[in-house]
Order: sequence, then C-alpha cells, then structure tokens
Amino acid sequence: MSASEAVTDTLRELHGRFAGVREGQPADYIPELARAVSDDFGLALVSMDGHAYGAGAADTPFTLQSVSKPFVYALALTALGLDEVTRWVGAEPSGEAFNAISLEHGTGRPANAMVNAGAIVTTALVPDTREAPAFQSILTCLSRFAGRKLDVDEGVYGSEAATGDRNRALAYLIRSTGALPVDPVAAVDTYFRQCAVRVTALDLAVMAATLAHGGVNPVTGERVVSPEVAAQVLAVMATCGMYDSSGDWLLRVGLPAKSGVSGGLIAAGPARFGLAAYSPLLDAAGTSVRGHAALAALSERFGLHLMRNPALPGSTVTLVTTADVLPSAPSGPHSRALRERVGVVAAQGALDFTAAERVLHALDESGGEPPGPVVLDLREVTGADSVALSLLHAGLSRLARDGRSAAVVDPGDRLGPPDLVRERTGQDLPRFGSVEEAAEHCAQTLAGPG
Amino acid sequence: MSASEAVTDTLRELHGRFAGVREGQPADYIPELARAVSDDFGLALVSMDGHAYGAGAADTPFTLQSVSKPFVYALALTALGLDEVTRWVGAEPSGEAFNAISLEHGTGRPANAMVNAGAIVTTALVPDTREAPAFQSILTCLSRFAGRKLDVDEGVYGSEAATGDRNRALAYLIRSTGALPVDPVAAVDTYFRQCAVRVTALDLAVMAATLAHGGVNPVTGERVVSPEVAAQVLAVMATCGMYDSSGDWLLRVGLPAKSGVSGGLIAAGPARFGLAAYSPLLDAAGTSVRGHAALAALSERFGLHLMRNPALPGSTVTLVTTADVLPSAPSGPHSRALRERVGVVAAQGALDFTAAERVLHALDESGGEPPGPVVLDLREVTGADSVALSLLHAGLSRLARDGRSAAVVDPGDRLGPPDLVRERTGQDLPRFGSVEEAAEHCAQTLAGPG
Amino acid sequence: MSASEAVTDTLRELHGRFAGVREGQPADYIPELARAVSDDFGLALVSMDGHAYGAGAADTPFTLQSVSKPFVYALALTALGLDEVTRWVGAEPSGEAFNAISLEHGTGRPANAMVNAGAIVTTALVPDTREAPAFQSILTCLSRFAGRKLDVDEGVYGSEAATGDRNRALAYLIRSTGALPVDPVAAVDTYFRQCAVRVTALDLAVMAATLAHGGVNPVTGERVVSPEVAAQVLAVMATCGMYDSSGDWLLRVGLPAKSGVSGGLIAAGPARFGLAAYSPLLDAAGTSVRGHAALAALSERFGLHLMRNPALPGSTVTLVTTADVLPSAPSGPHSRALRERVGVVAAQGALDFTAAERVLHALDESGGEPPGPVVLDLREVTGADSVALSLLHAGLSRLARDGRSAAVVDPGDRLGPPDLVRERTGQDLPRFGSVEEAAEHCAQTLAGPG
Amino acid sequence: MSASEAVTDTLRELHGRFAGVREGQPADYIPELARAVSDDFGLALVSMDGHAYGAGAADTPFTLQSVSKPFVYALALTALGLDEVTRWVGAEPSGEAFNAISLEHGTGRPANAMVNAGAIVTTALVPDTREAPAFQSILTCLSRFAGRKLDVDEGVYGSEAATGDRNRALAYLIRSTGALPVDPVAAVDTYFRQCAVRVTALDLAVMAATLAHGGVNPVTGERVVSPEVAAQVLAVMATCGMYDSSGDWLLRVGLPAKSGVSGGLIAAGPARFGLAAYSPLLDAAGTSVRGHAALAALSERFGLHLMRNPALPGSTVTLVTTADVLPSAPSGPHSRALRERVGVVAAQGALDFTAAERVLHALDESGGEPPGPVVLDLREVTGADSVALSLLHAGLSRLARDGRSAAVVDPGDRLGPPDLVRERTGQDLPRFGSVEEAAEHCAQTLAGPG
Repeated sequence: MSASEAVTDTLRELHGRFAGVREGQPADYIPELARAVSDDFGLALVSMDGHAYGAGAADTPFTLQSVSKPFVYALALTALGLDEVTRWVGAEPSGEAFNAISLEHGTGRPANAMVNAGAIVTTALVPDTREAPAFQSILTCLSRFAGRKLDVDEGVYGSEAATGDRNRALAYLIRSTGALPVDPVAAVDTYFRQCAVRVTALDLAVMAATLAHGGVNPVTGERVVSPEVAAQVLAVMATCGMYDSSGDWLLRVGLPAKSGVSGGLIAAGPARFGLAAYSPLLDAAGTSVRGHAALAALSERFGLHLMRNPALPGSTVTLVTTADVLPSAPSGPHSRALRERVGVVAAQGALDFTAAERVLHALDESGGEPPGPVVLDLREVTGADSVALSLLHAGLSRLARDGRSAAVVDPGDRLGPPDLVRERTGQDLPRFGSVEEAAEHCAQTLAGPG
Repeated sequence: MSASEAVTDTLRELHGRFAGVREGQPADYIPELARAVSDDFGLALVSMDGHAYGAGAADTPFTLQSVSKPFVYALALTALGLDEVTRWVGAEPSGEAFNAISLEHGTGRPANAMVNAGAIVTTALVPDTREAPAFQSILTCLSRFAGRKLDVDEGVYGSEAATGDRNRALAYLIRSTGALPVDPVAAVDTYFRQCAVRVTALDLAVMAATLAHGGVNPVTGERVVSPEVAAQVLAVMATCGMYDSSGDWLLRVGLPAKSGVSGGLIAAGPARFGLAAYSPLLDAAGTSVRGHAALAALSERFGLHLMRNPALPGSTVTLVTTADVLPSAPSGPHSRALRERVGVVAAQGALDFTAAERVLHALDESGGEPPGPVVLDLREVTGADSVALSLLHAGLSRLARDGRSAAVVDPGDRLGPPDLVRERTGQDLPRFGSVEEAAEHCAQTLAGPG
Repeated sequence: MSASEAVTDTLRELHGRFAGVREGQPADYIPELARAVSDDFGLALVSMDGHAYGAGAADTPFTLQSVSKPFVYALALTALGLDEVTRWVGAEPSGEAFNAISLEHGTGRPANAMVNAGAIVTTALVPDTREAPAFQSILTCLSRFAGRKLDVDEGVYGSEAATGDRNRALAYLIRSTGALPVDPVAAVDTYFRQCAVRVTALDLAVMAATLAHGGVNPVTGERVVSPEVAAQVLAVMATCGMYDSSGDWLLRVGLPAKSGVSGGLIAAGPARFGLAAYSPLLDAAGTSVRGHAALAALSERFGLHLMRNPALPGSTVTLVTTADVLPSAPSGPHSRALRERVGVVAAQGALDFTAAERVLHALDESGGEPPGPVVLDLREVTGADSVALSLLHAGLSRLARDGRSAAVVDPGDRLGPPDLVRERTGQDLPRFGSVEEAAEHCAQTLAGPG
Repeated sequence: MSASEAVTDTLRELHGRFAGVREGQPADYIPELARAVSDDFGLALVSMDGHAYGAGAADTPFTLQSVSKPFVYALALTALGLDEVTRWVGAEPSGEAFNAISLEHGTGRPANAMVNAGAIVTTALVPDTREAPAFQSILTCLSRFAGRKLDVDEGVYGSEAATGDRNRALAYLIRSTGALPVDPVAAVDTYFRQCAVRVTALDLAVMAATLAHGGVNPVTGERVVSPEVAAQVLAVMATCGMYDSSGDWLLRVGLPAKSGVSGGLIAAGPARFGLAAYSPLLDAAGTSVRGHAALAALSERFGLHLMRNPALPGSTVTLVTTADVLPSAPSGPHSRALRERVGVVAAQGALDFTAAERVLHALDESGGEPPGPVVLDLREVTGADSVALSLLHAGLSRLARDGRSAAVVDPGDRLGPPDLVRERTGQDLPRFGSVEEAAEHCAQTLAGPG
C-alpha cells in the first residue's frame, strides 16, 4: 500500500476537518446508547473491487439501530418480492420524523420501510422457517452484507426492550389495521435485536458497498441479494432514508443513505463506492452530525453526487471518413469512391443504450450523398449490454432493409456470435479484422460489378 | 435516418402498447383543460447529442401546468442561489398531494418547489427587473430550455385565473407567515401564466434533456443554467417531483420526473436522455396514465433506472506484468528483473475518482516482492476529471516518497502538463511513448549503476 | 341604589383581586391593538331585568374582534335558519386554534362559526339587500344587541385590513371548496369591519344578557333574535367559544363564553345574567388573562356553573292527606272517608315538565287503598309552560279513564281555560275556590248516593 | 300508577315513532357485538325523585362499552381530584373520532376522557388497593351508579380482548410519552372488562340520573360521588361525550350525553332527569341511530335543552306599595307617610343569586322620594342558598349604613338565625309576623319621636 494511501489521506483529512465539531447530543432515549463515547469518530470507504479505506475509529464497535432497516428490507424483498412486500409497507417519503405514527389512510400501511413503523413490519415479514427462526435469518443476512459474522450487543438490546413502548404501540396499531401479519410483541422484539447488532464503520462501508455493487459483497465476492433488490433498496434509501431531511440530503449530498441513532451513517454510490461514518453526536433529526458533514464532504470531494457528476460516459463514438482511416488508401479505380462514399464509425469503451444510440446516429450520418456503405469499427469496445446489442442489431437490420451495405470490424465478437447476429439483423454481416480490409470490401461493393 | 430509426421503432412500439389504455380522466378542475382530446398520446426522447425521437402526438400543443415548476425553480436558483431560495421554499417531500396546504411549522415555508405552494413561492422569487417583468423572464427561460420561442395559451390562462382560489389561498397563507416576499395576487397571476405556456412532447423532451445535460440545451447548444443548478433541480425532482407517489416512482422507474395536470410528463436520465410523454387522461394523483406507463417501460427497456443500471464503468484498469507487455523482452542482464520486478498498469477510457482509485490500487499491487518500479500506461485513456487527476497525482507523489520509481506512457498528456505534474507529484516523472521504452527505463533503474 | 350596591361590591372585590395580575401580552399581530393600555381592566354584569353593574374600566371603549362572532352568527341564523347556515359552517369544536386552517374533509366547511374560517363564512352569509349592505345589517344588529348605536374604530379596521393575509387565505380556500357563496375579498373586508366595531365592557354584558334572556335585550326590551336562535348561539359558544380551551372552560367556569384578541370576554348564564370583562393582556390562547380569572371567579361566587348549580327548582309539590288540610273537618257520615280516602296534592311555584311529572306522581300516590278521589291545589302555582300543561292534562285524563275522580282548586285558571281543559282531559273537571270545598265535594262523591 | 302513565305514554309514543327506523349497522369490529338483535329498542327516563319510566326493550341487557367512560372518570376524579386527573388526561374536545390517536403535543395527554385513549388512561388511574383490585372498584362504582349489582358479559369481554390491538397501541403509545402510570396491558385489560359490564336501558337512566342529581342515586338515595365530581363529569360529557358530533348534539339536543358502540346512549338534564336509550343500529360516528333520534325528540318534547328552556325562575319578587298591602291602613297621623313612603318587597319561592339580586334591586326601588323605610316580606320564600343569603345580608347591611331602616317579615327564619343576621348585617333587624305590623313599625320610625 503506497499509492492508494492517497485515498486514505483524503479520508484522514476530512476526519481531521470534522473531528473538532462538538455539536449534537448522543441519543438518550435508550440509556445504553447514552453511554457512547462522544468523541468517537470513524470514516470508511469500500470500492467495488473490495478495497477498504478507513480513518479514525473505523474499527470501533457500535450498534446498527436504524441502519439495519435497508438490509432487512432487502431480506424481505428477497424472500417475498417487491409486490408482496409493498402490500404491507409502502415506499413513499412521509415528510415526517422517524417515529411518526401516521399510517396510510385506508390500508394502515406504514409509509416506508425506513421509518420505525415500516421497519417493524419489514422485520415481521421475515419468515420463521424450520431451518432458522426469523432473527437468525436476519443476523445471517446482515453478516453476509458485512462479510463477517456479526453478533448482538445484549446490553443495548435489553435497554431497547425496556424502553420500547412507542415501537410496541406502532406494532399493535399496525396489526389493528390488519397490516401486520404476526404477533406484535414478537415482531418488536426481533426488531430490537436487529437494532442491537454490533458493527464497525468498516463493516457499514462494506454493507453499503454491497448494495452499490448490485448485491454482491465486493470483499467476499458473495452474492447477498439480487441486482433488482439492491436497486430497490437504494431507491427507497434515496427518497426515505434520511427521514424528514431525505430531500435535503439528496439535494446536497446526492447519494442514497441511511442513518441510525447510535451514530452510524451509510451512503452508497451505485457502481462506485460504499461509504460509512460513525460518530454518536446526533442532530435534531437523529443523524450523526460529524457523519453527515463528512459524507457530504466526501461526496463533494470525490464527485459522487448522483445528479451532479454522473459517471463519465463509458464510451466514445467517432464518425470518421475513410480518408482519415486510410491515409494511404490504394490508388486505383476505387480510391475516389472510397474516400468520399464509404463511412467509418468507430466506437470505444463500454456500450449501453446511450452509446448504442450514438452509434446508430453516427451510422446514419456517415457516408456521402447519397450515403454509401459503412464500416463499423468495434475493436476498442470493451463490452456491450443486452440493451445496446438489441439496438445495434435493430439498427443494422434497418440499414440492410434500406439497401445500405455495412461491414463490421469486430474481432472480439462484441456484436454477439454470428448466428445470433444473422438472426437479429437478417443478413450475414461481413466481418473483417481491420478497417482497411472492411473499407476495401465496401468500396468494391460500391463500385459494383464494373 | 435509417439505423437510428430503430430508436423511433422502440418509441412507436411502446406508443402502440399503451395507446389503447382508456383509464383515467382529463383534469376537470379547469374547464379549459377538460376540453383536451382524450386520445392524444405522444412520446419523445432527446439524447445528449440533441438527437430527437418522437412517436404519436409528439407535436401536439398543450400547456405546461406543473411541468413548469422545475424550470422556474431552476430560474430562481440561478437568480438567487440555493441558500437564498431555500430560505423561502424547502426541498423535502411532503408526503402529501400537490395542492396540500401544510407549510413548515414555525417558518411557513412550503415543503418543496414541486407542490403548488412551493411553486407559487418560487415564481414569486423571480425578480421583476428594469429589463423584464418577472413573467417575461420566466417565458424567456422556458423558451431557452425548449430551444424555441414559447407562448401562452390565453384561454387556459383565463380559465386558471377564474378558478384559482385555492392557489390564491396558498399565496395569502404563505405571505401571512412572512414567507412570501411579494404581492400574492400578482405572484399567483404570474404562476397561472407560467402554467399556461404552450409546449409539445418534443419540447418537453428537449427541456428534460437540458437538465440531464448539465444545463446545456443539447439541441441549441446554449447553456441555460449552470451544472450545479441542473443537478439541484434533478435532485428535487427525484424526491418530490411526483407528489405523493414520488417514492414509488423512483423505486420503479428510477428517474427524476415531473408531471402536470394537462397530461405532460417528463423524466431525465442524467448524462443520458430527456424523456417526455403527453396524454391527458390522469390518474388519481394527477399524473398521465399512459405517460406513466410509457416512461416506466422506456426506463425499463433502455436500462435507465438510476439505481438499477448505473452507467457501465467508463474505464478499465489492467494490471499486467512486463512479461505480458514485453513478450520479446530483450535478453540480457535485466531480463529477469524486467520480467519479475517491473509492474505495468494500463488504464483505458475515461477516468473519474472511481477509476483513479482503481489505478492507484493496481499500482500498489504491481511489481514483485519487494515491489519494483512501475509503468503507468495511459495511452488509451480518453479523459480524466479533476478529481481523478488530483488523486493520481497524490498517489504518484506517495509512490515517490516511498522510494518506488515510476514511469508513465502518456503521449496525450492525460496527466496534465508536465509543470503541473511536477508540482503535484514532487518529481520529474519520466514520460515515454511506448510501454517497452518505459519498462526498459524502469528495469535499468532497478538494475542500478551496476 | 344602595342595597344592590352589594352586587357592585362583589364586582369591585373581584376587580381588585385580579387587577394586579401582570401575566399575558397584548395582541401584537395587529399593530393598532398592540397600542392598548395594558392596565385597563373592566367588569360588568347585566341581569335579566336589565340591571347593570360595573367595576373598573367598564366604560372604556375597545374593539369587538372575535366577540363579534356569536352575534353575527345569530344574525345569519335569523336570516337563513339553522339548516341553511349549517350547510356552510359546522358546529363542532375543532380541537384547534382560532386561526386553524382545517376545513371539513369532503365539504370544505369550517368546523364552527367561532373560529376565523367559520366566522368569515358566517359574515359572508349575511345578505346584501336593497335596504342595507351586509355590513350595515351587521352594525345594526350588533347595536341592537348592545342597546345603543355602535360605530367602527377606523384605525383598527385599517390595521386589520393591512395585516389580514391569513384571513384572506382562509376565505379563498373556503371558496375554492365551494363553501363560500361570495367574493372572498369583500367577505373578509366586512369581517374586518365587524371586528373593529367599538364597545365597552358594559355593552358586552348587555349583549351577553340578550342571549341569556332568550334574545330580548333586557335593557331596551327589544327582541333582537328569536329564543331558538339565542339558544343555538349559546350552545355553539359552550362547545366552541373558547377555541381549544373550550372544554376546560366549560368544565371549570361552566358558562357559554366568547373571547376576543382585543381583551374582551363575555359569558352568559341562561335566564340569569350576562357577564363581560375587558383587559388586553392575553394568554397563549388569545384570551384575556384577568378576564378569564375574573369571570371564572364570578361564576364560582355567584353559583352560575351550568352543571354544578342548576337553578333551584322553581316549584314544590306537596302530597298531603285531607287530615292535614282539614284539621277541623266536619264531623258526620263522611268524616272518616274524608280523612282516609281523599288525597290532596298541592303545587307551588312555576311548573315545567319536571314539576308536572312530580305532580302526576303525587296524584298517583295520594288517596288511600284503593285510591279514592284527589284534590289538586294549584292556588300557589305562579305559572306553567305548555309542556307542563300538556302533561297535566294527559295525567288528569288518564285518572278519569281509570275511574278516579278529581277536583282542582285553581282560581287563577293555571290549568288553562275550562274549554281547553275539557277538550284535553275529556271531562268537566270540577273547580273550587278552596281545598275544603273541593275535598268536601270529593268526599261526597266517594260516599255515593247514600 | 295512573296519572303518571302519561309520562310513559310519551315514551311509548316516541318509541313507536322511531322503532321503524332501519338505518345504521350494528358494531362489527367486535364479533360478539355483531350478534346483537338489531330490532331491540328501549327507552328509559328516571326523575330526580327516582321515578322510573320505560318503553320497549328497557330491560334488555347489553354491555356498557363507552358509556362506562363518564362513570369511571367520575371514579378517578373522586380518587385523585380534578387537578391530578387533569395531569394525565385533558378535557378538550379533540374534533376527532373515538379511536383517534392524537395525543397532546408535548405532554402526550389524551385530549379527554371520552375518547378511547383518555378512557384507558382514566381506567389506569383507578388504583389497585389492598381492599380491592382496580376492576373491583370500578365494578362496585358502576353498580352504585346503577343502584344494583352489575356483572361482566364474559363473552363480550373475550371478544374485545381478542380484537383490541388498537387500544393496546394507544396504551403503549401513551406510556411511551410518560402519560400512563401503569402497565399498558393490564390497563387495557381492565378497560375491556369495564366495557363489557352488562346493563339495561333502565340501569343507564338511573346512572344518568345520578349524575343529574348531583351525584346522589335518586332511586337508592346513596351518594355515589360528590356534587363537584358529578358536575365535572357532566361538563366533559357536554363538550366531548359525542365524539366528533358533540357540538352538533349540544346544539340540537342540548344535554350532556354519552354513547357506546353496543347501542347504549345516555343524556342527563341537570336537576331534572336521566335519560337512556338502547338500540344497536349505529350511525357512522358509532352512535345509536334510534337512540339519537329518540333522545333528541325527548329533549324537544320535554323542553330539556340546557340553553333553550332554562328552568323557569324559581322565585318571584314583587315590589308593592303599602297602599296595596294595607288597603285598610289605619287612619291617623302616619297614614299618609305609610301610604307614600314605606316600601314593601315580597319574595316568593326559592332564592338563588339571581333572585337575591332582584330582591336587592326592588329594595332600592321601593319607598318614596326620598326613600323611606322598607319591609321585606319573606313568608312565601321556600328556601335560599348560601350565595343568596350572603347577598341579602350584604344588601341589608348597605341599607343600614345608608341610614335607611328596614324590617323583615320572616316567620320561617329564611334569612338565617338572628345571631348570624346581626353579625352579617351589623344590626338587630326588626322581625315581624305580618306585613301590617312591620309596616306600622316602619311608619312610626318614619314619623319620628314627634
């Protein structure tokens, strides 16, 4: 480790910048939480490759509290599917505080799985099975997200259980509307246990990174949940994760996030990073003051705002004329046609729908007037998703129907196996190893039998 | 146009799939709106390159209504900045309907600029200036977003003005709390005018694309608002744009969006697309039924969900050994060292923080034990943002301090001009035109004077 | 005036007890009101005979503000009737503050006529007629309640009009639901004028006494509203008059009441008194602090609590045997029967349903076994209402059907004219001037032809 | 029973009028309640003398449900006093339904003891003592109100307990705010038991009559609660007893009342009657449809509206001149003075503050100019409360200080024992047996030594 210490340096710098902040109060509604060391402050970041970086008290244990909610929601979604889970708990920001009582008029559904009422329902949805009681399933799931075996802080659990009347009220209230399928007391007890699971800031960063990485733990390589579930959880975190300051958080920090009253805080940059902070001094909304400040600064520093700094386009598409490609085009009867009428479109990088549309548009623009044949150069394409492939196939099929001939330079078969390409495009698309060969072929086509 | 007709084909297919939907009712609270042709249904998509695609009634005019809100919000943010605008209107989802009356306890601020109360405040924030009265500024701004001169449907405006008591009530209520800086009657009148501005689905797609494109109209090339403002508007649309179904929309469709009671609907894929639909049949929440269905299907089909299909990584980073790079390494005294001790890291594509972290990590991993010199090959890098550059410079600086020598292959000066690199890394980083030369240089370094 | 100075003495004593209270603040939301002299403190009491008593600043002028609401409500009820008024404004306590915005779900009706929203609607219901614009009708009505020509404090009116955005908002909001039949701006303007009508504490006590006196001004003798309307207004004052402390007020003070932000406060003891206080120092609910304390003490001192000290029964009913009535009963053949078998029931005072039931029950209990004839002595009855008469007639009719003879001593025709009695009781009820004669007649009946 | 059958006739007539009403539904949220016989319909009325009248199913047993609330509130007030009870439960109408969840902001207090939340708290306030567990105390109290030993319908109790999640939620919620001093589960269980106590309509009328009768059961003569507590309970019933239609009920029916979901309904006319109805068909607010109609008609028929038909004044005060009293005044030197200068004031009936004020005023008006001595004739006064006595004493004292002589005709010592009168009035008030003697005495006083 040497070059990448530069990443750690940044974490350390931000840690230093906010360590002196003395605002906020530790949670006091649970006696055990009030005993946290106010000065503890840890930051952690985990990449999609599983590289982990930390600063400060990144290894100090504390309890998950509400940070458990998105992960148990993921477990419920995995067990039951979005439609079934949505029958019991909504996905709307409520505009209210974490412990608000308002349930959806008519159905009694809690607004979302990030407020206590919804989290209790979510926990209640995790089934007891012959293999494992519900809490065992939850602990196993949380451990897989963290990449190590987690355990329960029994002191905190006992403290929560002793002071949890409001949550019991919520559970009874929800069941009274028919929107809780199980015993309220048991559901709340399981919920208290899940809140008391012990983690570190580094654990949290791995957990967040697993969501950002489409459900695969980037450290252990284990698939914990499906890409669909990971995306669903991130979406709900984006609108509801920070309670009644979720809108402001997305506006200013720009990442799906979740805070807990023990001082833990996570944020996820989809396909980029998992971030976490730990500092028990909370603001009025129950979010870690230093954590909020540090993750906001990290997002700003690293350009992670979902709306402000979208990932740079992973592809470039270049429209070139043969003249550029073939500076030393063969002299002879075809040379003029080659130079003027044969188009060349070169794509680089990874192709998604956005890139595929660019490619098709470039194909249309290429060639002379009237447009002649075109060469599509895919040598520097590093990958293409199914959406991009479908669109490319459809576009090439269109070209063929319009009588415009095309040739591809695709030694890596980025367009898919020839059989598939034939089926999708309705033709045997000529393939070449170099642009020169392809262009020459096209020029001959153009020149015709003469 | 031929290959790219494949994009239009997809729009047409979705148009056909949902054209038969007969659910919903046209808005009836404004008499003039109730006269809309229920069967009208248009779809439009505009790319970051300004390519426009449409299907169905994409050119049929209708009035903006609430779709005007994000754009006037953008104008207010431009005029006053986020902090000043936030003094008057929040950015939190309210969990309530579009015409809800609840204002923030204590301040009287409307929850956000997407509900009527907040939109009226936003409109009121647009200053009357000597050059232009407020509404003129708004119409000019909306026109720049659309890329053409828009006008007002006076019939709809008159109808709104005649039935706008609830909005007048909101305006008076807000001013009574001190949270409206101007005359309520005038503010509401301007608001009614902005709602009555006439557009088409294609216009809306261009307007959405302008937000997605960081504030630059991709058709006209004009910068309408700053990248920061565009991102701020998109973030608020993501949490608040679809009123009390914003959470569900982000969960299932995954894009910042805004609907209007005339049947217009926009969605923006940051750095990807602007989407729009028009169909006057509304659901209970006031959103176009067909529009909702079609944009959801478009997002699904084109893989645009912000959380589900993040843009493919724009870069690849490869850690290779010299053996791979230099299959025909010169024999001689350095050959063994070259093969075993000189690392080579090759990056391709566009570099952001995510990619830069990968590069640094790869540098650390490269080389033998103990790690020897390393070659960083940037020939296929297509660009790097400032965050990535900073991190690369810091990492290389770290390497140097740790006594590990490095060389770069960077004919395009992707690392920045030599002076800057020297200042940032604290060394004269040797630069070469090919990996072979760089590796050879490193091997000699390693071999030392001997 | 000398003996009745004892009443004034009590007012003076309570005035002295509370004059030193310094808690509370003058209303400051209307600049003009903030200029009130904080030390002003007046008390007044007016009896059903129109006797007026005052202490302190009972003649100091101030503006009605919300104390106008019950009286304009009375005017609207008179003009339109309860059912029509109830279509536009409810009669339910809202559990909310005076300026709350909540309107009835579905109808948009304000909860009641004592909160601002409902008062604005009430004012709007007063029709403009050819003879008088609405405000002229209101001012005339208020003047009749007060028994003198009242006028408007133009300074306060101007101040209200300049700061009345919240009320304008309410008016627009109500009209937007269809629950306001007129122009909001005009309605609110009239409402501001009515609030600015100038009165003294003595005026207020006369106004309250008019409601307590069944709608007849006890000083001028003029009928201002019907007994039904007076009762309706008092009932709404009882549940809603003190806003969100109406329940506590009725619990502790026990009288229908209404407060205003200028420091005026009225309470009405039905059929007993009108009370009023004036002191501009208000509590958090907007009620005069000294006024509240003084009226509560007056109610306690004078035993006016509706539930605690109901008016002493206005009647006594005595069941006596002839032996008591006729100590010197004539000797002879009937003496024994007279003494043992003829019952005598004597009633005194005013008879209502309660008393009539007692009379009937006593008739049943009277006489020997088997029960013989009965004498009903009504000489000391001072009056009987129609309910009591109906019940007495029905009971005497029942007696006759059961074959029990009765005679009445009713020189004042308290039972009604003989024709009516005959029609109602189905018999020619024998009437006598003295109990002795009646008893003798009965005894003879009993003795039979022998 | 014969004459008083006329009362029963009226009940029977109203019973017949409303027995055909088929609107409403039996409560279905408790399975056991849904089994009630829909056609059951009983009416009952009990007078302050304990006379009981019934019609229809007045003896059919059903469970108290919410009708238990005012009586347990009375028990809690008796045990702890109003101030302590008010610390835990308010007395404000909430404007909300019976099972609303809203608790007072800041304190967590339920709004009042008539909604479920407040009733649970009230029940929880009844202490367990060594002599009796809380529920035993409650059952004993309810039995004393009814005048017979009541018992629990175990089937209904079991059904409530099985479906009472919402009430359990309320209990936990209240305790979570600190506003419930005991175990929520136990409190709710006791509450369910109290709701399941079995009564008849006649029982309910006795219970209501006990409240109307100042806390003394008019049938058994037992004092159940103090007059203060009875009045407090009636006041809270008046503003909160009919949930969110309490205002309308007081407006139209005019009596403190309470309904229960089993179909029971009580109303109390202070110092007049207890009324009750039973019919299980409920309206949307949970009140018996026929019961509501019948009690409203009873109030109308019998003139019981608190505001509309206040008890007739229990007294008359007559101002007469000596000329009227002494038609055959002795001729002689004093005759002219007697006729012109000696006033006579005669009072009849029961004297309260209202009457006493009239007496004092009449004393001031009496006599000539300048006013001479005055005779106060109290022979026909049937009683006077302490407020009236104090005022009479004070007024007579005032007269004496102003040098005006007075004499009383008070053979029954209505003014109190001579010692007390001397102390209070500061004089030896001359007392006489007849007006003539008193007037003669006064005339001599006037004539002076000459």
